[in-house]
Amino acid sequence: MSDFEQSGAAVEFRRVQAEDLPAIVAMLADDALGAQRESPADLTPYQAAFERIAADPHQWLLAAVRDGRLVGTLQLTFVPGLSRRGATRSIIEGVRVHGDERGSGLGTQMIEWAIDESRRAGCQLVQLTSDATRIDAHRFYERLGFEASHLGFKLQL
Amino acid sequence: MSDFEQSGAAVEFRRVQAEDLPAIVAMLADDALGAQRESPADLTPYQAAFERIAADPHQWLLAAVRDGRLVGTLQLTFVPGLSRRGATRSIIEGVRVHGDERGSGLGTQMIEWAIDESRRAGCQLVQLTSDATRIDAHRFYERLGFEASHLGFKLQL
Repeated sequence: MSDFEQSGAAVEFRRVQAEDLPAIVAMLADDALGAQRESPADLTPYQAAFERIAADPHQWLLAAVRDGRLVGTLQLTFVPGLSRRGATRSIIEGVRVHGDERGSGLGTQMIEWAIDESRRAGCQLVQLTSDATRIDAHRFYERLGFEASHLGFKLQL
Repeated sequence: MSDFEQSGAAVEFRRVQAEDLPAIVAMLADDALGAQRESPADLTPYQAAFERIAADPHQWLLAAVRDGRLVGTLQLTFVPGLSRRGATRSIIEGVRVHGDERGSGLGTQMIEWAIDESRRAGCQLVQLTSDATRIDAHRFYERLGFEASHLGFKLQL
């Protein structure tokens, strides 16, 4: 172990548990776009959604924990498909790193975990969309080997 | 029923069955990008993928059939999530319309079906990515109300 690694507690990656929800929702809301979309004061809709996610074996809701404290989250979804010779792809959504952890390399570790987990699950492709305004995020994903080959379209219902 | 509608047989939307696979794979391959990615001469990987899709209740693999002939396909996936107040989103993938059907309005009917089905399933958001080179497809999705608000990143494993 290098001195650099010894300087902070190791991060643990595990599945989100019901008791993590307040901290997870606070992280989702602590973001320029999330602040307008989330309602951390009322956890009811998040609890119902958590039950849907936990019941779906194709979902992996990640909690990154350091020193017993929740410091990062993302959702990984495995989607079987016919195209690209029957490829299964994974989709990364809802990536958040706690403000205290910026520059710690945690975001990189989380995405690398998602890539490794996708490989273990037999995926041939990892994909994600990032809001066009998140320029720093785009550079981050490109450094990790992703290619911005697509446009992402959304329709609110 | 108008004269226009009487001039052609109505299209039927149903789930893809195992016996549809040769026609579906031929449509996936009959495309500028698909031609490089698909192998219609060997259906083995598609059969395995079809079984994975059929076993996953969050997948809807659509067959559009006219006069007993397969003329269109798309895949709709329902993804529960925590962000946006616990929103469930749907993802559209693998959209193909048979060459004979261009200009028939079938593509519009298929996407409108996917939007309606997403609403019935309780989704708050429909999303898709489209290769940056598919300029006509981008205009098509924008006409249907989608907003190109995101970049779509992909990483081949």
